[in-house]
Formats: sequence, structure tokens, C-alpha cells
Amino acid sequence: MDVRTNHAAQLTSSGELRHLLSLEGLPRSLVEDLLDRAESYLRPIGNPPARDNLLAGRTVANLFFEPSTRTRASFELAAKRMSADVLNLDVNMSSRKKGESILDTIYTLEAMQVDVFVVRDASVGIPELIASNVQPHISVLNAGEADAAHPTQGLLDLLTIRRHKPDFSALKVVVVGDIGHSRVARSIAQGLSIMGMRQLCLVAPPGLEPEPDDYPGAQITSELDAALADADVLMALRIQRERIAEQESLMTTHDYHRDYGITADRLKLAKPNAIVMHPGPMNRDVEIASTVADGPQSVIREQVTNGLAMRMALLATVIQANGEQ
Amino acid sequence: MDVRTNHAAQLTSSGELRHLLSLEGLPRSLVEDLLDRAESYLRPIGNPPARDNLLAGRTVANLFFEPSTRTRASFELAAKRMSADVLNLDVNMSSRKKGESILDTIYTLEAMQVDVFVVRDASVGIPELIASNVQPHISVLNAGEADAAHPTQGLLDLLTIRRHKPDFSALKVVVVGDIGHSRVARSIAQGLSIMGMRQLCLVAPPGLEPEPDDYPGAQITSELDAALADADVLMALRIQRERIAEQESLMTTHDYHRDYGITADRLKLAKPNAIVMHPGPMNRDVEIASTVADGPQSVIREQVTNGLAMRMALLATVIQANGEQ
Amino acid sequence: MDVRTNHAAQLTSSGELRHLLSLEGLPRSLVEDLLDRAESYLRPIGNPPARDNLLAGRTVANLFFEPSTRTRASFELAAKRMSADVLNLDVNMSSRKKGESILDTIYTLEAMQVDVFVVRDASVGIPELIASNVQPHISVLNAGEADAAHPTQGLLDLLTIRRHKPDFSALKVVVVGDIGHSRVARSIAQGLSIMGMRQLCLVAPPGLEPEPDDYPGAQITSELDAALADADVLMALRIQRERIAEQESLMTTHDYHRDYGITADRLKLAKPNAIVMHPGPMNRDVEIASTVADGPQSVIREQVTNGLAMRMALLATVIQANGEQ
Repeated sequence: MDVRTNHAAQLTSSGELRHLLSLEGLPRSLVEDLLDRAESYLRPIGNPPARDNLLAGRTVANLFFEPSTRTRASFELAAKRMSADVLNLDVNMSSRKKGESILDTIYTLEAMQVDVFVVRDASVGIPELIASNVQPHISVLNAGEADAAHPTQGLLDLLTIRRHKPDFSALKVVVVGDIGHSRVARSIAQGLSIMGMRQLCLVAPPGLEPEPDDYPGAQITSELDAALADADVLMALRIQRERIAEQESLMTTHDYHRDYGITADRLKLAKPNAIVMHPGPMNRDVEIASTVADGPQSVIREQVTNGLAMRMALLATVIQANGEQ
Repeated sequence: MDVRTNHAAQLTSSGELRHLLSLEGLPRSLVEDLLDRAESYLRPIGNPPARDNLLAGRTVANLFFEPSTRTRASFELAAKRMSADVLNLDVNMSSRKKGESILDTIYTLEAMQVDVFVVRDASVGIPELIASNVQPHISVLNAGEADAAHPTQGLLDLLTIRRHKPDFSALKVVVVGDIGHSRVARSIAQGLSIMGMRQLCLVAPPGLEPEPDDYPGAQITSELDAALADADVLMALRIQRERIAEQESLMTTHDYHRDYGITADRLKLAKPNAIVMHPGPMNRDVEIASTVADGPQSVIREQVTNGLAMRMALLATVIQANGEQ
Repeated sequence: MDVRTNHAAQLTSSGELRHLLSLEGLPRSLVEDLLDRAESYLRPIGNPPARDNLLAGRTVANLFFEPSTRTRASFELAAKRMSADVLNLDVNMSSRKKGESILDTIYTLEAMQVDVFVVRDASVGIPELIASNVQPHISVLNAGEADAAHPTQGLLDLLTIRRHKPDFSALKVVVVGDIGHSRVARSIAQGLSIMGMRQLCLVAPPGLEPEPDDYPGAQITSELDAALADADVLMALRIQRERIAEQESLMTTHDYHRDYGITADRLKLAKPNAIVMHPGPMNRDVEIASTVADGPQSVIREQVTNGLAMRMALLATVIQANGEQ
């Protein structure tokens, strides 16, 4: 089995999750434990959210070298609801300006007794670099890494699917969009593979296809309508308007919507009880019709709720793994 | 009675405050309850501030699409002293950049179980738009809406006045400045009308007058000295330097101060025990002389203290209204 | 003794620390109490950090008019671990834009019952200005003031030195770098003077020397190698690349490293058990070789840990002084 260095480093010697850098190579039992734990933090809408004191006295630093509202808010609230002290560091206010290297920033925060680093960066390899250099009692959670990985998104997607379609071995999942540049696609594909799904179909416009080697076992196509037959789960990715312009000089957002948008009509080609997902933020009426996004088959808002619960579960899990070292 | 849709929406079916979008149309008893509750949160300067656990486990999101130091700090400390978890989202770090609509941002935060949205925006109608679309257990507090409304400022002004002049029916209030563009003027006028004040006099330089229909019953004039006769309360508004330049090419800040500034000499034209107010931040020696701002009749700093207490009272009030739904 | 006004103002009438504006003129006993108290907040790496409830219900405002990651994070975590409510105000979001004067910002926050102001500014005199104008129960901590003072850095440096070299009267300390523009040099020199160190040697490249009057009793030289003989403590200052260019058109960072960088070879000229310090952030392989920064004689990360403990000690000390007034 081809395991890259970082994957080994994600687990402690006794097999517990220490860092979350990528879903690739994680044992299914560990993923299922995370799903169960996250589920235990879900509460009905309108009820107060779950809280836990597991991180009382601990410090979580959110290091966002790339802007993000949703993911940062989700991690910040997760840490606060676990009773942690939270430190938000955005790149604009950081000492990067002064030329300090990322690792020196990390060593500085480590010396301030930060316990968990939540890291988002536009470059590949930064979360792994940090994880390889922190002290043994510290954990790193990858909150989005260039085009490479977005493992907490992958886990929250798995949780959302499982709550509607618990038998992964029966599932056909269709992901539509700019697969070639999507860390979301990569992470959910790895997650689904761990959970043993039946079929993954990736639909990409010409020029936005992935390297087939990155998606072993997946079907790759540019024909959305054909791909939808028999689909249980339909996931639309955010399309970067500038990417359409680059790749296909004649393709407008209108064209994109016509050929690759999830519309009410197109949704009928999938199974009647198929669910529709989107990692957000959406371009309404580009990659997804507003009526579908807000319709009865949409689980888009559940994804957000599940994401916060999953981040609480991850914080709880890595803190406990560290406590046992 | 001409009640716009949003005003009905501010109250629950049993008449309790669910959102605060505007003071217009609020029942006097409800306003008085807010004043009483805010007063209960006041502490002598130098003593620790009041605290309350009413919002423990709740989440307050400060959504400031327009920059603000004072109002944001006031809401942030109010929420923290009520034991809430606080999420600050400024527009620069937000996903507006990515084209996400405001409502999708709201739905996302709602799915993270935010209980109260504090919203400041430079466009009219955003707080009402949000309030019309959130789930029934969620509240919206308007923290400043274009030129249209600044209801928490209006309430803190009422509290400040009441602590010095409890009988509103006897009061003459004079507001001086750019009435035409002031959300502060609008909100205090609505508040004073609810409390049944005797006389409101609005003094505006030529070109900065309001639409008379916006201020039914108020006297509108450009003659400050005459307006001051018999005044109990004198409120100077912040003047935007760029507005002076626009409207009156020959008017300098020096001219403004001479004609519309609250000076020590001019203050003598009002009642001897008149109080002087300013919503802040001040342009010292433009709309108000420094000696007056720091003088014995000034209650400007009390306004700030009362503002924080009023925001605590509002958080307490809307959380309890929601709990009963 | 030449004591400037602000130094008197730092202490209460009973000699307790009310503000920390500068180390100049502080009694040695008071400095030693701070070192002892900070030491009591140190915990072994990997253990949870120390916590204290001394600031529960109190509010600390971080007013950073100049960007800083490290110092702001250190103060923020110190305040949170002392159980304070923390308000972060960065200049970009502040009302300075609107022309509000700094003092009016302070009066506003004072009226919101802020207890401690942590102030960093690029202008000389701002912390003293604020301290001279706040109410008697409020404290100001200088978190970096132009080129003039960085007293919390000076204290954390003293603590770091004392933990390795407890007998100050035997010490030779060498500080290398842009002494002429360094608030760090100024504060550690004042601190060492209070603690009665044996010898302070300041090494500055031509054009970056200090005014000798600012460093009474210190040796000032441009010859690093000679200065290192018999040194117990070696402190490299951050060099501003733009300052090298200004002062010495032919000096590159390579030249700087060759002549003034702390290298492994050069370190051998000092005592064998000499410690190496740097206030951070470092330009690796400019003012300090990476191998030295990460080597066995480096105490650079301890400085960061000690800094957080010192800031907790300062918060505890000024809150108690205020409680007794």
C-alpha cells in the first residue's frame, strides 16, 4: 500500500488520530468513530447547541493564511463550544509581513502553549510541514489546503450522507464541477472509498477534468445527464467564474448552468429520493438552481450543522489522543 | 396607523420583542421595560460591570458590513457579559468577496446555531431582509442601517435622557446637525415620540434638512440660537466633513462651528440645567466645543455606558421572547 | 535622580504598580516581585498552561495601532488565561478613520468599563498620554512604543536571563544590532541596570549606534568579536532590511550576517555556557544563524513562554493595585 509519509504521521503509535491532514489511508473504524462522535453533538434546530468541557484550559489557534468565513466560523464555534480558548490569526495581521517564516510563527505559538493548530493555506504541504515539526502533544487540523485536501469537509459530507443513506455499499454518488481543482472532490472521494461506496462518478466540463490517477476506481465523464441515472447522492461543487473564462472562452455562467447546473428537471434523472449537496458558498443559478438548493431534496444546510459537530468531534478526539501519549 | 411590515415582525404574537429593527411603532410599555432592564445593568464607574448568565450556551454573531469601533465593541462586550459565545464577522474577511449572498451567509450561520444576529450595513433594508428570513427562534438586532435607523442608539439616548429628565411630557429636545442623512436623528425622534415628549426641534444647515414627512410634529429650522430657548436636551450630531464640502462650497468647519457648533456661549441660551449629548465619535470644535463636551452639562460618556447596558437588556429580552415561542 | 513624570505615575501612592509604561526608575523589589509572580505561572511544556481567576469579570482591551502577531497573541492569551473578557481593536477597523482622537476612543472604552488597556503604537508618548488621562481604577500596559520602550519585552528578557544566570551582578550582556532604533535594547538596558548587572555591551553597525546618553554606563562599539569575550548573555536584535539599505548602501544582508550575525563560530568567542536570545521575529541567517537559533544555547522559545507568564503577572499585579485604591 502506497502510504505517503504524512498519513502515517496522522495516527499515534496506538492508532489514534493525532493530526487530520488528509483522509487518505485512514482506517474505516476510525472514520466511523468520528462520525458517531459528531452525531452525538447534533441537536435539533432551535435547541441550544451541544457543549462539552473537554477542551477547558486548552488553546486552539486558527491560522488562516487564506480568507474564509464559513470554515473559520465553524472551527471557532466548535472550539468555543468545547470550552477552549481560541486565538484567531489572519494573515493580514500576521508577522508574515515581516518575513517571519511560518514555522517560526508555529514555534512561537507552541511556546505560548497552543494545543491545536487549525490551518488553512493556499499552498500544498503546509499542514503536513507544520505537523512534522510540532511537539508530540500538539495536533494539526487541515482546514483546507490549496487544491489538495479538505478533510473536515470530506468527513462532514460522509456524516451528511450516512444520516440519509446509511448503507454506503449501495450508493452511487455523482460529483459535478471543477473536479480538477477541487480539494472538496478529492476529500469526499477518499472518504467514500474508505466507507466502501458502490460507485463514484465525477462529472467535469472539458478542461476541468481531474488526473484519473487521483481518483482510482471512479468514473470520469463530461456527460451529466447520463451520469445521473440511478444516483443516490448528487454533489455540486462551487465553480470559480474565472476558471470558466480561462478554460472555455465561449462558456458563460449561463452555458455552465445549462450544461452542468443542478436544475429541478435534471434532478429528476436521479433516484427520486436522491439528496443534493453543495460545500458552499453557492453561486445560485450557476452550479445549482435556487429552487433545488432550497428544495426538499437539498441537505446543504445540514452539511453546515454537521460540519460544526464534526469539528467538535475532531477536537475531542485529538485532545484525548494527545492526553494518552 | 401606518405600520410598515417590518414593525409587526418585530414583536411575537404575544407582543414581546423578537427583533429590533426600528423604534417606529413600538409600544411605550415595551420601551419602558427595556429602559428599566437596561438601568438594572448599570453599575457605578470603578465597580465591576454587571454580568448575567442569561445567554450562557447561546451564540451571538456580530455581522458588521460597515466598519465600527464603538458600536461593535459595545455589542461584543454586552454579549460577553451576558455569557454568550461571540462570533465577529467583518466584511473584509467575509465570503462576500466570493459572491455569496448575504442571505446564504445568514443561512450558514443559522445552521451553526447562531441565536442572535447583530447587523450593521450601509444599505437600507438589510436587517429587515434578514429578520424576514430567519427561523422563528432567531433574533436580529439592527446596529445601524444606512441613513435609515439606529434603534439601539435611540434607546440609549432615551435612557440617558430619562435618568436626568424623567418627565418626557415636559421636555424640549433640540437636535443639531446633518439631520437629512442621520439615522441617529431618525431613531431618537421615533423614541421621543413614543415617550410623548413635548417638543422636538431639528436644526439643520441649509442643504442638510430632512424631509418634513419623516419627522411629523417636529419643528425644522436652520436657526440654532432661536431654537435653543427653553431647551432641556441638546444633541449635536456628527458632521461628515465631506458633506459640508458638497453642500456648501463656502462653508468650512470653522464656519460650521460658528453657526452650528455647540459652544459654551450658545449653551447658555438653553435652560441652565440642560444636558448635552452626542452619539460619537465627535469632531471636537466642529459640531461641539471641547469645553462643552467635557463640561458639567455633558452626558456623552454616560451615553456610552448606557448603550452597553441597553444592548445587554436587548439581548436578554429577545432571548427570553424566543424561549417562550 | 532624573525621573520623568510618567515614571512617578506608574506607581500608586503606596508604591504598587498601576501602569507599566517604561522600566526606567522602577524599584528593584517591584521588578523582582514581577519576576517571581511570572515564574509562578510557568508550567512544563506539554502540561496545560497556568490559569487564574483574578481577572474574572474584568475587561482587557488590546489597542494595537501598529500590527503585531506575537505580542498581541501573548497579551490575548494572558488575559484569557486570567479569565478576563478580551476586546481586540486593530487600527484598520477603528474609528481613527473617522478622525476620532485616540483619547476619545479611550474615554469611550472607559465608559464601557474596560479595566486594562494594552497599547501598542508607532508614536512616542501614546501610552503615557493615555495613562495620564484614564480614571484612577484603570491601568495601561505599554506593549511597544515606537523606538522608545517595550517594557514587557524587557521584563520577559530579565526573567529568561534570571532562570539561567541568577546572579546579575556577575553578568556581561552583549546586545547586537540596530541599537539606535530599538525599543527592545532600551528596555532590556533599563531592566539590567535595575537588576545591577556587571556589564552591558552594545554592538551596532556604523550608522545604527545609539545616543550614548541613552545608555549610561554601557560600552558602545561596532566590533562584535571583541565584545563577545567573556559574555554570559548574547542578544541579537531583529534587523530591518530597509535600515541596512538606508544606512549603508553597500551592505547586504550577507555582509550583515558576516559582520554582525550570531554564528556558531562566533558564539565560541563567548563563555561556553552563554545563552543566546532574540526578541523575534527572526531573520534567520541574517542577524542569527539558524543553527544557533535552534541550538542548545538558544533560549529564544523560552523567551516567548516567559513573555506570556510575565503578561499574566502584570495583569494580576495592576488589577490588585487598582483594587486597593
